[in-house]
Amino acid sequence: MIIVFRAGATQSNVASVMKEIEDKGLKPVPLYGTERTVIAVIGDERELNEGHFESLPYVEKVMRVLKPFKLVSRETKPEPTIIDVNGVKIGSKQICAIAGPCSVESEKQMDSVASSLKKMGIRIMRAGAYKPRTGPYSFQGLGKEGLQILNEVGKKYGMATVTEVLDPRDIEAVSTHCDVLQIGARNMQNFELLKEVGACQKPILLKRGLCATIEEFLLAAEYILSHGNPNVILCERGIRTFEKETRNTLALATVPLVKELSHLPIIVDPTHGTGKKSLIAPMAKAAIACGADGFIIEVHPNPEEALSDADQQLLPSQFETLLKEIQPIVDAVGRHL
Amino acid sequence: MIIVFRAGATQSNVASVMKEIEDKGLKPVPLYGTERTVIAVIGDERELNEGHFESLPYVEKVMRVLKPFKLVSRETKPEPTIIDVNGVKIGSKQICAIAGPCSVESEKQMDSVASSLKKMGIRIMRAGAYKPRTGPYSFQGLGKEGLQILNEVGKKYGMATVTEVLDPRDIEAVSTHCDVLQIGARNMQNFELLKEVGACQKPILLKRGLCATIEEFLLAAEYILSHGNPNVILCERGIRTFEKETRNTLALATVPLVKELSHLPIIVDPTHGTGKKSLIAPMAKAAIACGADGFIIEVHPNPEEALSDADQQLLPSQFETLLKEIQPIVDAVGRHL
Amino acid sequence: MIIVFRAGATQSNVASVMKEIEDKGLKPVPLYGTERTVIAVIGDERELNEGHFESLPYVEKVMRVLKPFKLVSRETKPEPTIIDVNGVKIGSKQICAIAGPCSVESEKQMDSVASSLKKMGIRIMRAGAYKPRTGPYSFQGLGKEGLQILNEVGKKYGMATVTEVLDPRDIEAVSTHCDVLQIGARNMQNFELLKEVGACQKPILLKRGLCATIEEFLLAAEYILSHGNPNVILCERGIRTFEKETRNTLALATVPLVKELSHLPIIVDPTHGTGKKSLIAPMAKAAIACGADGFIIEVHPNPEEALSDADQQLLPSQFETLLKEIQPIVDAVGRHL
Amino acid sequence: MIIVFRAGATQSNVASVMKEIEDKGLKPVPLYGTERTVIAVIGDERELNEGHFESLPYVEKVMRVLKPFKLVSRETKPEPTIIDVNGVKIGSKQICAIAGPCSVESEKQMDSVASSLKKMGIRIMRAGAYKPRTGPYSFQGLGKEGLQILNEVGKKYGMATVTEVLDPRDIEAVSTHCDVLQIGARNMQNFELLKEVGACQKPILLKRGLCATIEEFLLAAEYILSHGNPNVILCERGIRTFEKETRNTLALATVPLVKELSHLPIIVDPTHGTGKKSLIAPMAKAAIACGADGFIIEVHPNPEEALSDADQQLLPSQFETLLKEIQPIVDAVGRHL
Repeated sequence: MIIVFRAGATQSNVASVMKEIEDKGLKPVPLYGTERTVIAVIGDERELNEGHFESLPYVEKVMRVLKPFKLVSRETKPEPTIIDVNGVKIGSKQICAIAGPCSVESEKQMDSVASSLKKMGIRIMRAGAYKPRTGPYSFQGLGKEGLQILNEVGKKYGMATVTEVLDPRDIEAVSTHCDVLQIGARNMQNFELLKEVGACQKPILLKRGLCATIEEFLLAAEYILSHGNPNVILCERGIRTFEKETRNTLALATVPLVKELSHLPIIVDPTHGTGKKSLIAPMAKAAIACGADGFIIEVHPNPEEALSDADQQLLPSQFETLLKEIQPIVDAVGRHL
Repeated sequence: MIIVFRAGATQSNVASVMKEIEDKGLKPVPLYGTERTVIAVIGDERELNEGHFESLPYVEKVMRVLKPFKLVSRETKPEPTIIDVNGVKIGSKQICAIAGPCSVESEKQMDSVASSLKKMGIRIMRAGAYKPRTGPYSFQGLGKEGLQILNEVGKKYGMATVTEVLDPRDIEAVSTHCDVLQIGARNMQNFELLKEVGACQKPILLKRGLCATIEEFLLAAEYILSHGNPNVILCERGIRTFEKETRNTLALATVPLVKELSHLPIIVDPTHGTGKKSLIAPMAKAAIACGADGFIIEVHPNPEEALSDADQQLLPSQFETLLKEIQPIVDAVGRHL
Repeated sequence: MIIVFRAGATQSNVASVMKEIEDKGLKPVPLYGTERTVIAVIGDERELNEGHFESLPYVEKVMRVLKPFKLVSRETKPEPTIIDVNGVKIGSKQICAIAGPCSVESEKQMDSVASSLKKMGIRIMRAGAYKPRTGPYSFQGLGKEGLQILNEVGKKYGMATVTEVLDPRDIEAVSTHCDVLQIGARNMQNFELLKEVGACQKPILLKRGLCATIEEFLLAAEYILSHGNPNVILCERGIRTFEKETRNTLALATVPLVKELSHLPIIVDPTHGTGKKSLIAPMAKAAIACGADGFIIEVHPNPEEALSDADQQLLPSQFETLLKEIQPIVDAVGRHL
Repeated sequence: MIIVFRAGATQSNVASVMKEIEDKGLKPVPLYGTERTVIAVIGDERELNEGHFESLPYVEKVMRVLKPFKLVSRETKPEPTIIDVNGVKIGSKQICAIAGPCSVESEKQMDSVASSLKKMGIRIMRAGAYKPRTGPYSFQGLGKEGLQILNEVGKKYGMATVTEVLDPRDIEAVSTHCDVLQIGARNMQNFELLKEVGACQKPILLKRGLCATIEEFLLAAEYILSHGNPNVILCERGIRTFEKETRNTLALATVPLVKELSHLPIIVDPTHGTGKKSLIAPMAKAAIACGADGFIIEVHPNPEEALSDADQQLLPSQFETLLKEIQPIVDAVGRHL
């Protein structure tokens, strides 16, 4: 940690800060510059309260030297984490393809989509039973009934299932019925929920928040790991910017950057990342080209009648075309589906 | 609702959309332009699924005519909502001043700050028992013990209390011990929590999300009202932008705009809105000047030792100065503290 | 400057950086931490090329200790700069009110608005002769003819005039005909233009760019001062964010923050800052409440027929009401119009 | 155009708007809804002044049906524009690779980099003679001397040259010495410059502004085309967002979206788009995977000694590796370098 004093700070101001640092068992090194005095701290700065020093009237700013996360860091664990979901080794050379409708709407709809996806070789299916909707008058999901349908259809077709959990009270039911628990973008900083999914052992698909920095995204994963669950799959799904032609701005540079910073696998959601059907396939290809471990895409047997996100779900036939088109890119990066 | 067709849409495409609209009991009016065909829908467009029409391959875009919220709208209820908290009539000519520390840290700390605030005439005190922290290694609040301290100190000094609730499972405890439940910025779209606080009758202080639009902010309030609780106090607390000199960008134009769109009271949080002590007083004044119904400010008896947000909490004496400085602005807008 | 090395950096990496710093006449202080080595630089870091050190493969990041601007800094010149325009002392206790239409459209229009403003006591009038328009098919301004009209009408009513200059080739004509040269938001980083207006001695009204940080804003002013012109009036006019209910997000905290960092006066443009007529008066009041030295507002004798920005210009009568409403706020902060 | 009236608008308000529309030769169609009256306009709405209607007190909002650009639109010209630069057919199946240093620093530096690039088969070289720098104390480029060096080295190695023009007064010199004129991100809305490069016939490389929407980006191109120059190459180079781990947020979805909206070629700049060396290759691959017509990358013979952007320029050997790594992606999308 680097503590920069204001121009007028006195010797005794500096001395008092040095004493505090020493009291915490760390070593302060004062540097007397031409315009500013600076204290550099030797030791694990994570034990210091950054805000405390910033609150001192004679301190101008405090700069951290170390990243605030530990368990998710590649420095802590250099080899990649590989998470096995239904035989798909997420984080390995294998590209993980997750597909399914936005919401569970009926057994018939789920059976139809699962049957189509199965034929294409998809082994992990997504669908929402609890739906976070911007307005209270929109379809809120089938809840427990949705979980049961998802579970049954998944079993019938031998597919692992992914579904979002919104409320700590639902974790037990969701983890009983499903294979992967999704934390949605709006809940990326719902810390109580993160702690609770950290206490279960199912793999967690953690989506980046709409306006979360990459550091905050990794700290959200750190919550889960630090509560005992090492099986976190990160998911870049677009951030909110001034641009309105696309629903979100898919920030693909997150992929190689997260790969440098962390050992966790990261996949991409081009459906929410763009909100436009015609952009899903190009962005899925781009995701694989820059190193993503997979993608998650909304597929619905009849998107026009979908109860949510009708405008961005692909038909099974469109998704099949996407899988064919993406194969040369998967090959080009030396991986396999 | 206005449905704009793509350049190549056929007569039968238009006819099928018209039929769908009629089937929902609304009236479609087709308009054949020189470059595009458009259908205008007569009737309550909220009954239509916007996404459905956008999903049609021959539709270019869908534009809404009406706002998606109803209960919070000033058109629905032209007179302002006034919420009485401990004799402070929030939303009336009276300016509401809420103050207190970021976190409940101890009975001593709370007694000290409450005693100071009481002398200044403050009737509503804030303090966090459950703390949403970006990283898992930061102080997470005292939890239930914090609630009890807050409750006891509030009673001792005759002050109403505001505290944040993070988890639906804590609502009962929080509403037993406190007078106003706060929904924090990170939970503005935690819809399960919104539904649950909508089911209780305590006033809710709803903070704007870091990247929530004003429309989403009002829709979050709509969740609470539609679940039965009309007592919502909105709070503008800054949004996340590219600017990093301030912690957030306090978007004060939200205040007069929300006053046009909604009957709900709105206050401003200049502490989180700026993250810099020296900016709190100027922005509190600006908030009152543009029509806010009050402000909420972090005050701590010893900010340098605070366990959270040490850098942005005011000393009681600094807050007292702020109250004095703001009085002429309060007078200038014809209101009173 | 603080140079943070990567985890694996060697002694010889550190030594080579130390040598480079010494070669520039500055003093490097190496600090060997538990996880990272850090070099702190004693001396004026502005002489070092930050990017150079960041480019080294064994350097993780470089953090500046000092602000990159000098001449505009309040540390360099603690007393406020006061700029006299037609007897209005901008930056003093006097609040500066600038008003006028978006564009010069005709002599009749300008005469009408000038006559109205004169009666209200306004001494500085704005109007655009060269207009930066998003699309090429919009009205682009009357150019030189507009300058002449502005000049004549200004003289007739004894008002100083402000107009935007877009092209270095127009500076001579603009500075001959007008009293204050405006650099618009889209040209805040048109550095050739900044250098040229730095070479003239007329006061410059420098608007903040749509996505300029406060540091970049002050560096743009530094360009002008460093080229010889100390008469810069800053203007906060809103930044671009995800929010679309207002045209821009008026970031009023810029005002007190710039006052801390710089000695230059700063005014606020609530017209462009909000883009909505009903929000102009509340935000002008808020601007004064938080310490702005004035405001600039678009006023048109017949906004509905304006050739640009028709939707956000006030009628003279509306502006007169605003002046009356703002007076108590001006009084409350101990200033005068 | 769709004009939505406020709830209280009268019959005569509606009638007056209808008359105005008819007076412009267009056809208004009034629609009387349950909550709002709406007028739809039949005819080319681009002839109407949107702001005028929004300025009317009884109008709530105005929504456009058509895009505001024409010449750059794919509807106007469905076949792609292909621009030949030194035999590289930009916009065809051929992927265009542009490389070179941030700034021209000396003949020796330019000769070194050109010689390296030539061997790799690169036919278009970039380098800045006029440099837009955030602060006035940074290296501002060699100016005319730089142009001459660029010209000579280009000729020597048979490479076309790209350089940025900042000032309309430099266009003649730049277009005499170079083959492609670059309009930088900070000048994307320097409309006088756009008009002037629209009047020359050299190809223009137009970079997206830091906070420009895609619509504004295409309107900037429209300025150039409407002033007579059809040879515009668009370049996505990242936008400014809240994320600070990367210098900008490279918004790759712009590529397929611009391909839908416009016939112009679009390339990607992963150097400025990320600002981090390690992210350049992954993002160049992603760009090609999602359909970009090429990339532009900064390459310097000795990046550590570069006078600008030292931290983000690749060594020739690193660029050569990138070219090899990207080849399988180029093949995978059925194109060639």
